Amino acid sequence: MTQLLRSWVDSANTATTDFPLNNLPYGAFRSTGGDLHAGVAIGDQILNVTALEQAGLLDLPQPNVFAGGTWNDFMALGPDTWASLRAFLTGALAEGSARQADLEPHLVAMAGATLEMPFAVTEFTDFYASRNHSFNIGCLFRDPANALPPNWLHIPIGYNGRASSVVVSGTDVIRPNGQLKGPDMEMPIFAACKRFDLELEMGAIVGTPSNGRVSVQEADDMIFGYVLLNDWSARDIQAWEYVPLGPFQAKATATTISPWIVTKAALEPFRASTPPREKELLPYLAEPGPMLYDIDLEVGLAPDGKAETILSRTNYDVMYYSAAQQLTHHTTSGCPMRVGDLLGSGTISGPEKENRGSLIELSWGGKEPLTLDTGETRTFLEDGDTLTLRGAAKGDGYRIGFGECAGKLLPAPAIS
Amino acid sequence: MTQLLRSWVDSANTATTDFPLNNLPYGAFRSTGGDLHAGVAIGDQILNVTALEQAGLLDLPQPNVFAGGTWNDFMALGPDTWASLRAFLTGALAEGSARQADLEPHLVAMAGATLEMPFAVTEFTDFYASRNHSFNIGCLFRDPANALPPNWLHIPIGYNGRASSVVVSGTDVIRPNGQLKGPDMEMPIFAACKRFDLELEMGAIVGTPSNGRVSVQEADDMIFGYVLLNDWSARDIQAWEYVPLGPFQAKATATTISPWIVTKAALEPFRASTPPREKELLPYLAEPGPMLYDIDLEVGLAPDGKAETILSRTNYDVMYYSAAQQLTHHTTSGCPMRVGDLLGSGTISGPEKENRGSLIELSWGGKEPLTLDTGETRTFLEDGDTLTLRGAAKGDGYRIGFGECAGKLLPAPAIS
Repeated sequence: MTQLLRSWVDSANTATTDFPLNNLPYGAFRSTGGDLHAGVAIGDQILNVTALEQAGLLDLPQPNVFAGGTWNDFMALGPDTWASLRAFLTGALAEGSARQADLEPHLVAMAGATLEMPFAVTEFTDFYASRNHSFNIGCLFRDPANALPPNWLHIPIGYNGRASSVVVSGTDVIRPNGQLKGPDMEMPIFAACKRFDLELEMGAIVGTPSNGRVSVQEADDMIFGYVLLNDWSARDIQAWEYVPLGPFQAKATATTISPWIVTKAALEPFRASTPPREKELLPYLAEPGPMLYDIDLEVGLAPDGKAETILSRTNYDVMYYSAAQQLTHHTTSGCPMRVGDLLGSGTISGPEKENRGSLIELSWGGKEPLTLDTGETRTFLEDGDTLTLRGAAKGDGYRIGFGECAGKLLPAPAIS
Repeated sequence: MTQLLRSWVDSANTATTDFPLNNLPYGAFRSTGGDLHAGVAIGDQILNVTALEQAGLLDLPQPNVFAGGTWNDFMALGPDTWASLRAFLTGALAEGSARQADLEPHLVAMAGATLEMPFAVTEFTDFYASRNHSFNIGCLFRDPANALPPNWLHIPIGYNGRASSVVVSGTDVIRPNGQLKGPDMEMPIFAACKRFDLELEMGAIVGTPSNGRVSVQEADDMIFGYVLLNDWSARDIQAWEYVPLGPFQAKATATTISPWIVTKAALEPFRASTPPREKELLPYLAEPGPMLYDIDLEVGLAPDGKAETILSRTNYDVMYYSAAQQLTHHTTSGCPMRVGDLLGSGTISGPEKENRGSLIELSWGGKEPLTLDTGETRTFLEDGDTLTLRGAAKGDGYRIGFGECAGKLLPAPAIS
């Protein structure tokens, strides 16, 4: 495992920052009232990449790649350009670099910046790939005796989500209204969701387009980087709507992502393998090497104005299917993939209760309320709650973090 | 009902053209090897709207609306601008118009043009809203005793589709490979789909964005126009993958739309009501007036190099839910809608066998092969088959047509 790489940005040289020189995640930001800029996190600073480009300091194959302030156009330039920008930044931000004087004027304090969506989401697909989560949900929504669907050990099950609902960390989330019908009700009602939940996920971002089926290795090569992802879920809306065509409005209120895209290059030292296959996979899903990552994850819940309780801790390496396998499966039908497509991993639940990545699992369908550190209890989310996901791959004296993926829940709109 | 409006473009003044002056549908085209232009169909001609704009003949609130050759930027200008362009075109193309000399140089023969996607699809949602189709599919995929899901009479059931797979009429469609597992197989195989099907649908195009729930009237106001839509479907892939999260790769190979967007304004004289409600709908889904349209539809199948057989004839007015109701439901969770979103109606099947909008219904799951006019039989599609959807609202001596929505099926890719 590599060591901490030292930068002339002092705040990057600590074991606690999410953003050492080893990381260099990509985001988008505004200084007060200003335009959107593309930026790279380094310690407690953001390096303004849009400004670097305008100052002629970047060697890119075309002009105005960062003029719009997001990373889509850069992703479209392909893996060689991804590697060369990372090499340039790694060198230029390193302790002792002769570039320090050129770059220093383009540093902005992260504390004074507003972080925005790092990329425009082209389409959003969400998967269902943690064995523990899928088993738990199967018990709660269906039948413990047949909790895991028959196809689950063969197919990286996914469904298309709603790209328009993906928001960046810090965006408030409004509790949805929807059709609700309990098993004992004769007719549905239209009312505020009463079982609003989080889902702790990772998101993989497609940086290279495809047309036709790709191998798992090709799929891995197509992935630009990863974000934390909270797929907010209305469990009562979902239970009534999802048969036969899957979740729809239950998953369309919001999906929050972390403001920083951690590149695949930064995560390379932390590759981990999927677990042994319980049933042999079809050859098209075979992984040529480790395609998951060892990333510690946690979920915190803070009631309005109160201290946070950590609800769950788990790791991305528990997943049964990797993002590369999911992306490969996504292309089997010939489905074209495009730059900026976002693939949610599915809720990441570990084997124990304290590793579960959603409240429906943690409270076992609302039957076992959780007690928070404040003494309050929760089954599902209450208005005013702030949910925060955090994640980091942990190296020798450094961490590769994503920044916080947070959102506060506001009350449902009035129904007129 | 209005009469035929006469144009100085003679070919528009017939009872058989899809494109009389009453219609004026919007598309995109290339002349040989040229740039993409926005165009309006009139008789056997296309009026080059991009050229009209460049010549300063259009009164639009901003420049370069049609420079990209598609209709998204125009849709974003809103309903007042939609109405004013239509009024201008209706007047300028009318018999006796003083504008004839200005416009005539910008006519292009449709026969020499290549029609392209009339708009960029932002996101694609597909619904399940024909009672006959839903009942038939319920019988075939599940259980005749409980064919209609319990939520069906309450919710306009929908799922998110894949925008990247939407193609314009004339684009070849490649038979997908995918995971297949029959009930008598122990393990799935990865192989070419054997039950590839069409779905006869209408598509509604969102022209006005929303953020938060909209009423059915507001939803109707947001719709810019309609296209014919064929949601190609891999039934064997679907049967194995769709529980519990809905169709995914079964619907991601391609969705073909007609090259012409027929505006809501052109369809106005043909409004029709949804049928009586079998169960009272929740108030948020109440329609303030007729929101369907009387549009005759047909499906033709032509084996490679052979004559076409009409497989089915039906009408859009059989739907249980209108596009406006579907769009309203789509916004209940707060899901933002954007310009260019496409909503598939769901397969349109009428009450009789000859009105069914898919082969799985027409051949009753493959058990009752159809005999074509050529003497060949079909259960599902065979390589080389060309599927063509046609549709028109029929006025007094004129028709409002969509052009053909056609695609030819090519063999599946080899599996290495």
